[in-house]
Amino acid sequence: MSIATTPLDPLQLPESLELRSEHDLIGERDIPVHAYWGVHTLRAVENFPITGQPLSTNTNLVIGLAMVKQAAAQANHELGLLDDTRAGAIIAACQEIIAGELHEEFVVDVIQGGAGTSSNMNANEVIANRALEILGHEKGEYQFLHPNDHVNLSQSTNDVYPTAVNVATIFTAKTLVAAMEVLGEAFSEKAVEFRTVVKMGRTQLQDAVPMTLGQEFNTYAVTLGEDRARLAESALLVHEINLGATAIGTGLNAPKRYSELACRHLVEISGLPLTTSVDLIEATQDVGAFVHLSGVLKRVAVKLSKICNDLRLLSSGPRAGFGEITLPAVQSGSSIMPGKINPVIPEVVNQVAYEVIGNDVTITMAAEGGQLQLNAFEPIIVHSLTKSMRHLEAACLTLANKCVRGIVAHEDKLREQVEHSIGLVTALNPVLGYAASTRIALEALSSGRGVAELVLEHKLLTAQELDELLRPERLANLSD
Amino acid sequence: MSIATTPLDPLQLPESLELRSEHDLIGERDIPVHAYWGVHTLRAVENFPITGQPLSTNTNLVIGLAMVKQAAAQANHELGLLDDTRAGAIIAACQEIIAGELHEEFVVDVIQGGAGTSSNMNANEVIANRALEILGHEKGEYQFLHPNDHVNLSQSTNDVYPTAVNVATIFTAKTLVAAMEVLGEAFSEKAVEFRTVVKMGRTQLQDAVPMTLGQEFNTYAVTLGEDRARLAESALLVHEINLGATAIGTGLNAPKRYSELACRHLVEISGLPLTTSVDLIEATQDVGAFVHLSGVLKRVAVKLSKICNDLRLLSSGPRAGFGEITLPAVQSGSSIMPGKINPVIPEVVNQVAYEVIGNDVTITMAAEGGQLQLNAFEPIIVHSLTKSMRHLEAACLTLANKCVRGIVAHEDKLREQVEHSIGLVTALNPVLGYAASTRIALEALSSGRGVAELVLEHKLLTAQELDELLRPERLANLSD
Amino acid sequence: MSIATTPLDPLQLPESLELRSEHDLIGERDIPVHAYWGVHTLRAVENFPITGQPLSTNTNLVIGLAMVKQAAAQANHELGLLDDTRAGAIIAACQEIIAGELHEEFVVDVIQGGAGTSSNMNANEVIANRALEILGHEKGEYQFLHPNDHVNLSQSTNDVYPTAVNVATIFTAKTLVAAMEVLGEAFSEKAVEFRTVVKMGRTQLQDAVPMTLGQEFNTYAVTLGEDRARLAESALLVHEINLGATAIGTGLNAPKRYSELACRHLVEISGLPLTTSVDLIEATQDVGAFVHLSGVLKRVAVKLSKICNDLRLLSSGPRAGFGEITLPAVQSGSSIMPGKINPVIPEVVNQVAYEVIGNDVTITMAAEGGQLQLNAFEPIIVHSLTKSMRHLEAACLTLANKCVRGIVAHEDKLREQVEHSIGLVTALNPVLGYAASTRIALEALSSGRGVAELVLEHKLLTAQELDELLRPERLANLSD
Amino acid sequence: MSIATTPLDPLQLPESLELRSEHDLIGERDIPVHAYWGVHTLRAVENFPITGQPLSTNTNLVIGLAMVKQAAAQANHELGLLDDTRAGAIIAACQEIIAGELHEEFVVDVIQGGAGTSSNMNANEVIANRALEILGHEKGEYQFLHPNDHVNLSQSTNDVYPTAVNVATIFTAKTLVAAMEVLGEAFSEKAVEFRTVVKMGRTQLQDAVPMTLGQEFNTYAVTLGEDRARLAESALLVHEINLGATAIGTGLNAPKRYSELACRHLVEISGLPLTTSVDLIEATQDVGAFVHLSGVLKRVAVKLSKICNDLRLLSSGPRAGFGEITLPAVQSGSSIMPGKINPVIPEVVNQVAYEVIGNDVTITMAAEGGQLQLNAFEPIIVHSLTKSMRHLEAACLTLANKCVRGIVAHEDKLREQVEHSIGLVTALNPVLGYAASTRIALEALSSGRGVAELVLEHKLLTAQELDELLRPERLANLSD
Repeated sequence: MSIATTPLDPLQLPESLELRSEHDLIGERDIPVHAYWGVHTLRAVENFPITGQPLSTNTNLVIGLAMVKQAAAQANHELGLLDDTRAGAIIAACQEIIAGELHEEFVVDVIQGGAGTSSNMNANEVIANRALEILGHEKGEYQFLHPNDHVNLSQSTNDVYPTAVNVATIFTAKTLVAAMEVLGEAFSEKAVEFRTVVKMGRTQLQDAVPMTLGQEFNTYAVTLGEDRARLAESALLVHEINLGATAIGTGLNAPKRYSELACRHLVEISGLPLTTSVDLIEATQDVGAFVHLSGVLKRVAVKLSKICNDLRLLSSGPRAGFGEITLPAVQSGSSIMPGKINPVIPEVVNQVAYEVIGNDVTITMAAEGGQLQLNAFEPIIVHSLTKSMRHLEAACLTLANKCVRGIVAHEDKLREQVEHSIGLVTALNPVLGYAASTRIALEALSSGRGVAELVLEHKLLTAQELDELLRPERLANLSD
Repeated sequence: MSIATTPLDPLQLPESLELRSEHDLIGERDIPVHAYWGVHTLRAVENFPITGQPLSTNTNLVIGLAMVKQAAAQANHELGLLDDTRAGAIIAACQEIIAGELHEEFVVDVIQGGAGTSSNMNANEVIANRALEILGHEKGEYQFLHPNDHVNLSQSTNDVYPTAVNVATIFTAKTLVAAMEVLGEAFSEKAVEFRTVVKMGRTQLQDAVPMTLGQEFNTYAVTLGEDRARLAESALLVHEINLGATAIGTGLNAPKRYSELACRHLVEISGLPLTTSVDLIEATQDVGAFVHLSGVLKRVAVKLSKICNDLRLLSSGPRAGFGEITLPAVQSGSSIMPGKINPVIPEVVNQVAYEVIGNDVTITMAAEGGQLQLNAFEPIIVHSLTKSMRHLEAACLTLANKCVRGIVAHEDKLREQVEHSIGLVTALNPVLGYAASTRIALEALSSGRGVAELVLEHKLLTAQELDELLRPERLANLSD
Repeated sequence: MSIATTPLDPLQLPESLELRSEHDLIGERDIPVHAYWGVHTLRAVENFPITGQPLSTNTNLVIGLAMVKQAAAQANHELGLLDDTRAGAIIAACQEIIAGELHEEFVVDVIQGGAGTSSNMNANEVIANRALEILGHEKGEYQFLHPNDHVNLSQSTNDVYPTAVNVATIFTAKTLVAAMEVLGEAFSEKAVEFRTVVKMGRTQLQDAVPMTLGQEFNTYAVTLGEDRARLAESALLVHEINLGATAIGTGLNAPKRYSELACRHLVEISGLPLTTSVDLIEATQDVGAFVHLSGVLKRVAVKLSKICNDLRLLSSGPRAGFGEITLPAVQSGSSIMPGKINPVIPEVVNQVAYEVIGNDVTITMAAEGGQLQLNAFEPIIVHSLTKSMRHLEAACLTLANKCVRGIVAHEDKLREQVEHSIGLVTALNPVLGYAASTRIALEALSSGRGVAELVLEHKLLTAQELDELLRPERLANLSD
Repeated sequence: MSIATTPLDPLQLPESLELRSEHDLIGERDIPVHAYWGVHTLRAVENFPITGQPLSTNTNLVIGLAMVKQAAAQANHELGLLDDTRAGAIIAACQEIIAGELHEEFVVDVIQGGAGTSSNMNANEVIANRALEILGHEKGEYQFLHPNDHVNLSQSTNDVYPTAVNVATIFTAKTLVAAMEVLGEAFSEKAVEFRTVVKMGRTQLQDAVPMTLGQEFNTYAVTLGEDRARLAESALLVHEINLGATAIGTGLNAPKRYSELACRHLVEISGLPLTTSVDLIEATQDVGAFVHLSGVLKRVAVKLSKICNDLRLLSSGPRAGFGEITLPAVQSGSSIMPGKINPVIPEVVNQVAYEVIGNDVTITMAAEGGQLQLNAFEPIIVHSLTKSMRHLEAACLTLANKCVRGIVAHEDKLREQVEHSIGLVTALNPVLGYAASTRIALEALSSGRGVAELVLEHKLLTAQELDELLRPERLANLSD
């Protein structure tokens, strides 16, 4: 998510700036003539000076809004509510925005009161003014084409905004799924590379029984694969839209076939298999799909954080730690400690995970705060959800490209640890019996010597028998 | 979840109590002869004096453990690892526990270190001692049948405990789903009852456009229905078990066909369509399914809390509030304020919801804290998840039976509010036009008079036309 | 917190049970004659079947309620509102409860609707019936002494309940502070014991520069000491009470001097330096002090969890881990892995910490949900806060007694790690210069050899100079 | 917090750009000659492409870093470690940054791995290159003045970064406290304005007893005042710094008096009464003060959210709601519903509160994740804390200026509600007695009539007596 410059501060317009006048229910206001946004956007910018981060930073939401507006215009046109000229200009303006134009005109703050009304108004005004230009009029000549009467025709913020958010969320989720796949593949490749590297498995941070480093890395690929599946499932819930619900879902004043037509056009424009909710009243007030999706993102974050904790643990050292693997050096460590390399990539992923987990609480509270026929707090839900997805995406790609692919295993040390491990005793259990195993274990623990060495010394097994029992493939239950 | 008495404090045994002696790696300890639990349980009781709430309070987990132990015994018997006598006694003991016997012997604290080892040990000891009794031996005569060697044969805590937790979770989730259905039906019945009760819909707590109270209550039924579906989906993830994984998922020392046989027997015993995980290493360390389930429970909590917020709002008053509905009086309110009735049932549901949301954070942290081949913190996950499900179940039933079924609507007041609402103007928009509508709205706002009244006064519509436009069925978009 | 038996299920009274009749606004109900609680309690038990955990499990809250009731009776008596006989009986009944009697009669669920009304009613009824007995009457003969008219005189749930909660919270917090002190001292003793044990310090899990194990353990003592100070500070906020506020803080119908007198008596009874809030309206609706206290408990939990993470890390091994220290064995580990000892005590503390952090979210949501002149959700706040404090207390004591005191350091290994560490180079920097230091570091890293060894080999320093530079006291900046 | 443009993407340098070469342990890299940052910053920008939000957006942190660097230079100069020329140039460069220059050169991402190393490196490089310019050298001619050897002299990221963060946090907290004061005063002014506006108080959303709107608004001022005090207290904890701790707090290689001197200079430069921590090892790894501060910010958020919930509730309507007050119209509401005005300002404040509460969970997790001698996750803590403070500040000012100051009370309706309230009965209790009061209450409830009216009809009191009993001052317990 790239962060654009802050919008022009409307209270500090340069004296010389050319202005046009617009009015709303509160009164008259001057707008810079170059601005595609109008008086409603101006009010919102003044009312919500919260983050300094404009709506334009949520690219997919801007595109989602334009797609919905285009679909609505096409439906209205088909229903005879919008003439060819106006419909054509609105559609053309929307297509420009979908293609990436005019995004810098979406200047309202990402955190805003009013259930998304200001985002919708901002879109209406930008599209109207661009359409006016296309038709050869000046910006602000709303008598020819009006932000509310034409761009917002048959619509309410309460169906437009959630639908645009759904479209944006699907796009963003898809990119995240792709990034997770990149990371999963990086782990899979390492799993193949480390297939025969035998090492000690650990439970509760205590040496347990042998496994391979390949199995360990494969686990990360498997677990991310499951999460991808869950994320895709959860994103399906967001495919249900409420276009045509108007204010509270009763569809009051919306033409009969509008809902169906608008959805059909939006499916075509977006390329997404969207469907209209069966119960529009419930759909208009419910944000359960976002709570669900955020819950799944939190699950992804938990897994990523656990994986990064493991990577930092396995690479701890180089001398006084686990020292099983080395992460690639991507930047110098301390200025005061020469030669120190830190696991900065896993560390940044941990931090993104913590952020996502916090965002989930924010989303939960916003969802719980919804009242009666609408949830007024959808903007913070959208903002938090988008951050979670975008930052997780960046985290996955960074982890794959700057860390996982370059990991090196210390094969000799790992095998040596297995050979000196007391946990080996478990593998000898079926042959030596529990009593003898325990005696060996205790002697190993107190003497500091190796289990294999002691077994040979006590002539409990021949070197050949022992070698067979301690074959990596056998210990780690690899099919060989 | 009923709370049993605290276990006998092992440090304060009455002098006269008859004792038997047991030993573990640390040493010898006296155990009351009547106790089915043994030295490992005693150690755990001493080590984890955290909540005073014993494992027995989680009935389904005790049953789940017994089911897993029975399935393991049957598999071991089939594989020739356990003789007829011992297998028979173990199976009989397990069946007694499944039938509800001996639960008071599960005395370890619900919050415990050790990744569930103490819960598993407690089960092993109770089953072994009951099996010994069945075979005519004294408790503690482990030379005939041993908690570890026989009851725990081919098993590790790391596959037994998660599998038992899965079984318990499925049972508990099913009960919750049933309770949610009861609540959903209570709302559905009210939706039918209130089908023609027209009222003002509200967005952002401001009067919007008309709807029916039936639609409002139907929304609650619909939303709970969706949540039931999500919960059922999420519970499916828990049907994947890891029996046969042993310590870290490599299945070291577990007989070849054990995993498959144990699962097959557990399916039969539990009646649940369980399957064995494809990747046992991943399955042994992963708690993603619990994070997912908890996320869905949080979603349920958010919805229930929102519904209860609405009910408290709609019933606010009786004079200086919304006063749309009256909740049934279930207890006296204030001693200082005669006649005051409070919405205590929705209030208790809100509190359960807050608890569930907090539990989700607990579960998230415990999941994130898992390291390498095992998550040592599964006990707190299980404890939190069980509380969430049990308390939500109680909340749903209480809400249905003590509140929703007895709700009464103030039909006249609601219709009057619609008739006096400025929002009516929206419904007249298509007939009067936007300009005339706005003038009427402003006059209504400043004069405090009704929109209908003003429309008649200005002779904009006849009484008959107005009646038609304001028919409840039309306003609320009911199919009539 | 010991968990008592569940209350008698009022819907399943045995046929033969002797009953008395009581009535409230809803109607007549049978009460077992032996019960000290009455009809209001019965309603509440029926209305809130949530956790099965009765109020009696919160011992300090039961005592707090009794103290407040005694203080109120004394104030009412002094103001001439309560005669000698009734006042004497009420005071005597309260004193019995304060001494630990009759707690099993506090049977309402810990999670309850109604802002604590049911807890207050339960107290009023138990005290009234015990007072009646003392006066020679039968339970239920309220014409002689009434739960509301006399026990609750000049009071409202809205000032009684918060005040009792404050008193209970202070008592519970004090016990926690004492437990934290025990743990702090355990760490301090170890810090002294390990004063000269030199080891590698680590940042970002990578070897950094030397320090002593004593410094490391001292850090835990210091950090817990700071937390104790913060907790004590935060508990001060809870010393402000609102007795005399009555329903909403305006003190309507409360006698002039009642507030002042009741507070003075409560100070005497409780031994706590309580003061009456300056703004009773604010005090009656505000739960900020609990949010603050919970925030501090969360801080304590974070610290404890971090410390336990460290202990588990430092004791990881025994062979393939850090292996710096060994935690005392308190129970057998795995049945499948002979001789395995797990860090179960730190693990249980981690889990308590996760629970406390989740409770903080619950409390936050309950606090945010308060509306207008009262927070209806104080019961879940109290329940969560009490759990947090009680479990943290148990965790601190268990950690001190079952783990910290028995920790053993592997002094030789630790010193060896320092000597072989590349981080030593940092200490030689001022003598050898940055360039030579870097060359030595790189040679050590690639050859796997020790820095000291290489310095001697290259004759950069004499053995004596080196010994001086690497003296533990110097490296770890100990005053010697 | 203003959001600057994204930094130059270092991978897509225009061909024609003039470049200089820098190297680190990994190798050689080209840097644009105009850039004040160097190779370490470049690596970090490449490694952490997470948010697109550069460090420069945290103005106070950039200033804090410069202040610390200046203090260090002055201390080093005083100790004879830095010559006059270099010290002078470094100090001059720092002063420019403190004055607001060169902030756009702080380009590393706000979320970064490495415990703040990249932020420190970015500062070292910018300061070094500006100092080189001042001395007449080219940027990159580090042989004359080196980012590490001179700018970072006697320092480690692990003492520089936390100290700079503390300084920044104090500055930001001060601004927030000031904004809270503005909001508190806005409420106070309204409290005076509404001093005699009598209204119904409510508990649990049910009509309770009378109070004044002035008392209600005063509560908000009082509660914010308490929060200001808590925030100031908590900010005191951040005044303890660890300059001189170097890598892990042992101060290895830092000159004897450096710590004391650096602190003394920083006090002078910043104007803040900073002190050096007594235990530098604990101070270096501990982030408890941030957890504490975030807990207090969460408390502020909870209060603000509760207040905004109240404002939205009290202004609900205009017809079918509480309708007690009207919030100023700051923007048009719905396009589909003419004349609708929504409470958008409280709504945006609610959303900020939800964000702050989520941030607290993020901070908690980051704090818990710290290991051994350092917390590697301080950057996400700082980022979250800064957002919380900045957004709360904006929320307070917006709420004060765009909402509270313009609130209008509907005095007549409020008084009428009191007069028609059944709750009035409570006020007549002491005169009429409980029995008569209850009869009047029940008649009022069933008949829909007013209590006063019925009292007069039944001749229980004269109109004059009634007027006296129902005087606003008496009901609301105002001193008159």
